[in-house]
Amino acid sequence: MAPERGLDLVSRRADSPLPEGSGPCPFCPGNEHLNPEEIAVAPDGDAWGVRVTPDKRPLLRIEGDPERRAAGMFDVMNSIGAHELVADTSDHEVAWADFPRAHMIRLLEMYRARTVDLRGDRRFRHVFVLKNHGAAWSRYVHAHSHVIATPFTPKRLEEELAGAREYHRMRERCVFCDQLSEEIRAATRIVARNDEFVTFTPFASEYPYEMWIAPVKHAADFGTITDAALAPLADLLVDALARLRDALRNPPYSVVLHAGPLDGSDRAEFHWHWEIVPHLGHELGMEWATGIFSNPVPPEDAARLLVAARPMPG
Amino acid sequence: MAPERGLDLVSRRADSPLPEGSGPCPFCPGNEHLNPEEIAVAPDGDAWGVRVTPDKRPLLRIEGDPERRAAGMFDVMNSIGAHELVADTSDHEVAWADFPRAHMIRLLEMYRARTVDLRGDRRFRHVFVLKNHGAAWSRYVHAHSHVIATPFTPKRLEEELAGAREYHRMRERCVFCDQLSEEIRAATRIVARNDEFVTFTPFASEYPYEMWIAPVKHAADFGTITDAALAPLADLLVDALARLRDALRNPPYSVVLHAGPLDGSDRAEFHWHWEIVPHLGHELGMEWATGIFSNPVPPEDAARLLVAARPMPG
Repeated sequence: MAPERGLDLVSRRADSPLPEGSGPCPFCPGNEHLNPEEIAVAPDGDAWGVRVTPDKRPLLRIEGDPERRAAGMFDVMNSIGAHELVADTSDHEVAWADFPRAHMIRLLEMYRARTVDLRGDRRFRHVFVLKNHGAAWSRYVHAHSHVIATPFTPKRLEEELAGAREYHRMRERCVFCDQLSEEIRAATRIVARNDEFVTFTPFASEYPYEMWIAPVKHAADFGTITDAALAPLADLLVDALARLRDALRNPPYSVVLHAGPLDGSDRAEFHWHWEIVPHLGHELGMEWATGIFSNPVPPEDAARLLVAARPMPG
Repeated sequence: MAPERGLDLVSRRADSPLPEGSGPCPFCPGNEHLNPEEIAVAPDGDAWGVRVTPDKRPLLRIEGDPERRAAGMFDVMNSIGAHELVADTSDHEVAWADFPRAHMIRLLEMYRARTVDLRGDRRFRHVFVLKNHGAAWSRYVHAHSHVIATPFTPKRLEEELAGAREYHRMRERCVFCDQLSEEIRAATRIVARNDEFVTFTPFASEYPYEMWIAPVKHAADFGTITDAALAPLADLLVDALARLRDALRNPPYSVVLHAGPLDGSDRAEFHWHWEIVPHLGHELGMEWATGIFSNPVPPEDAARLLVAARPMPG
């Protein structure tokens, strides 16, 4: 429950996109006093290029104990975890799709540093990076993202892990590695690739124009990505979002990093990856009602459109 | 994959609600030739009051075999099932929230009749009724709904059933019955009730203003609802949607009936119920990224607002 996040919910309906707030932008240089508790900054010359602070209305709070307890027949616990807010850039206008390579590398370095730092808190099991762009429910235009650490395994990760473990138990291979091999072999859903990473629209994906970016070589822990791999990853992330923008007229989108279990478990089974979905306003009722996803754009068609949208990177 | 449903996806973005089509309304009397294959009708005097046809762009197709097979390392099957389209009324303008009691009973009778009829096809395991109202992704203003039968247990039902079975195994009681007792005892999340049914905002519900309507007495199979129970159920359904409309300025919403396993399994464990969620444009990125739901409106607050919106029914 996050009541402090719902104050203006009814006035913020999807059919009435929020006008940008009238106050000063909390992510712009000069307004740092609006988020005084700095967690980390990455310099860009004499100024900051990326800046991390606690979220002021956190979904998960860093202090305290989960205090699992009963409430009648129900179970409750406190929302313990980390919820950090990242100013992705000091530039109020520029989106990820237009980030220079050097700046995207700087941001990825920060996500790696936050992953490593949060691993030091033994309560936490998983780290996510979540980026929302342009949706009516984003309050700020200035590019920002969330770093979230959880002391439990959230449901979607649990499903991913359960499938990966079962597959590994049967075949002693990483299911993501096998999937990547199959995608590269079939070649009908590849959007872009370089020596280290591949961008693809997964087989039978749940959402139209859903893309994944994953290391071609097995890697379970984003926190251990090498310096040398940051540039090729930055290239494909910027490329994927530029393709979305060009192919689908700058849609709102969400991006998530599933960074791998922090405690090093499932090292053979898991494979870190980024997932990207545009928000295209397709029917959500069926998914909510039944859990059946209906994707109106086969990933093979999506890949063709995304490939055609712009030249290959590099 | 449903490619025929995605033709105009990019032009139908949530930020540009679809203007109503220029063609004749396929649900209005006089236009029956647009959906010639009639499955069932309920009369209203000399005319029809409710009319059921196959969906022209079905998510699931009635003919054929699932033909489960491999595609490289992946598994595929044909989308077999029933997907029926219901004209909820012959009146182009009237919404469920304004249905007269007699007409809501007529519609519920039709859902019961379709459930019983689809049970005759031994391939089918579950029936759902899905109703979307007013969202940008609804192509038609005229009130309509979907009756869907699946030859498999969709994921959300599987989760509901798995929890209910585990609870029953431990306590030999229906978890929904216990939940209803607890909700009625706590009384802080009750929106409306009568002798047969109760409307409530469930403890720790996933969505803001989510409501459930369930029979107070254990009942696993909507197909066996008695004639006498139709009126009190109709009253609470209309009442709940009128409250949403009044409390939240006529939001878009979805309604689903989880009708219970068609083959009579889980008779002691399952409990049929309706679920209602308004679409308020709150943040979806976290839910998609992690499976963590963050509800900005505690159900106790939602219940208070919904109760205050209008007098109690009856």
